[in-house]
Amino acid sequence: MPTSHTSPISTTAVRVRYADTDKMGVAYYANYLVWFEVARTEWLRDRGWTYREMETNGVMLPVITAHCEYLRSSHYDDLLTIQTTGVRHSPVRVEFTYEVFKADNTLSARGSTMHAAVDVHGRPCRLPGRVREVFQ
Amino acid sequence: MPTSHTSPISTTAVRVRYADTDKMGVAYYANYLVWFEVARTEWLRDRGWTYREMETNGVMLPVITAHCEYLRSSHYDDLLTIQTTGVRHSPVRVEFTYEVFKADNTLSARGSTMHAAVDVHGRPCRLPGRVREVFQ
Amino acid sequence: MPTSHTSPISTTAVRVRYADTDKMGVAYYANYLVWFEVARTEWLRDRGWTYREMETNGVMLPVITAHCEYLRSSHYDDLLTIQTTGVRHSPVRVEFTYEVFKADNTLSARGSTMHAAVDVHGRPCRLPGRVREVFQ
Amino acid sequence: MPTSHTSPISTTAVRVRYADTDKMGVAYYANYLVWFEVARTEWLRDRGWTYREMETNGVMLPVITAHCEYLRSSHYDDLLTIQTTGVRHSPVRVEFTYEVFKADNTLSARGSTMHAAVDVHGRPCRLPGRVREVFQ
Repeated sequence: MPTSHTSPISTTAVRVRYADTDKMGVAYYANYLVWFEVARTEWLRDRGWTYREMETNGVMLPVITAHCEYLRSSHYDDLLTIQTTGVRHSPVRVEFTYEVFKADNTLSARGSTMHAAVDVHGRPCRLPGRVREVFQ
Repeated sequence: MPTSHTSPISTTAVRVRYADTDKMGVAYYANYLVWFEVARTEWLRDRGWTYREMETNGVMLPVITAHCEYLRSSHYDDLLTIQTTGVRHSPVRVEFTYEVFKADNTLSARGSTMHAAVDVHGRPCRLPGRVREVFQ
Repeated sequence: MPTSHTSPISTTAVRVRYADTDKMGVAYYANYLVWFEVARTEWLRDRGWTYREMETNGVMLPVITAHCEYLRSSHYDDLLTIQTTGVRHSPVRVEFTYEVFKADNTLSARGSTMHAAVDVHGRPCRLPGRVREVFQ
Repeated sequence: MPTSHTSPISTTAVRVRYADTDKMGVAYYANYLVWFEVARTEWLRDRGWTYREMETNGVMLPVITAHCEYLRSSHYDDLLTIQTTGVRHSPVRVEFTYEVFKADNTLSARGSTMHAAVDVHGRPCRLPGRVREVFQ
């Protein structure tokens, strides 16, 4: 994945809820994408901005591709740690990468999401200056 | 529950998804509220209106109370049948009641949701004429 | 609600995720039941036990009724505080009650869930001694 | 994607629920993975088998990678059509590919999931004969 190794990393914890589990006894696969959303929200907050505020300012970053590789199941009540980084991929796109660790430091999953900047009318737009600064 | 016995009933089918199950092997309890939403949407469609259209016309019906009684677990791939009815409860409120049946006609759950009419600004309003007609 | 005023109260925080919101711009109503699950899990943990451990010991507490009253919408990125208490309702049942507060201390929702004790075969059973102690 | 063009295709319909939408007014991205699950379940059913029966027979097909490309937003009450195909990828893996169409036949999203066969103990195993037949 084309992430810069100098990009700042944020660490976020999520606990697996009963709602997240399925009849196999493990966290259902789609939930990892929800946890990725939590992780990138916290990454932004750590950079001094919130996604809520970004939307209020008229910039949205809808997901255009998502990818996840599932390595080890996670289970009910597991406290997972997600390491996240965000990079500017082009003048109109940013990419987040994620690694989800279990309490024993084994990797449960890793993935990435690509996002396009759109304005309040839903039209693609260039990343505004402040977004560019946050995603170095 | 204070439903009129002359109210029309709609029948909706939902299949239990793997995503809906939990580690107990049964459908997680919050999903029944999602199925209730599917059921009341279909009840409205059967009355010749859609909730999508209702919102476009500036009326929303947010939930103000929800109640569910869980009688028998439902399982992955079960095809459930929901019988729904909607009644006008007051000049500003409507109520839906739901019965969720399993394939063997046993009752899995029953519940109800009360809804207040609000306008586009989120302010409580009287039920518009057309809504009153639908909810006799 | 028939809760004892001497029951211990736990306080849990949950942040509203983008996934939790709906097109009305507020947290979708079924998510409150998921947050109730988070809150009762933390209530148990605060009492020195975990629901995970309880299940391992062969006791499950499936929900038999759920009720929620929605008072004020919650929004994306809101940090909600849930105050929870659990009480023994009968030799075979326990009840949790929940109050969900917004950051400005207004009440977003309140609700309750009733749970029956079942053994590993899914059969109703009396609350084991240790459960009775936790739910005074 | 390495799917054989001679593989049978199944078509499944899902309607976007209010629960699926987010504050942007569109279906939240993780829901597409849930719809993919619905689609592959129906693909199997169309081949004369059910995933429920497969699990009863001791074979599970957990997801090991998931990928989704989001092309056009879908909205509340949209009736989406998913075209799915499943192929045997190796002696131990199967892959499903999905195309999600909107009512106007434009493509909303496309994606794929790779699955490894595991036995009742969660150990990787070769695809049993009957699974190999279904996934030609």
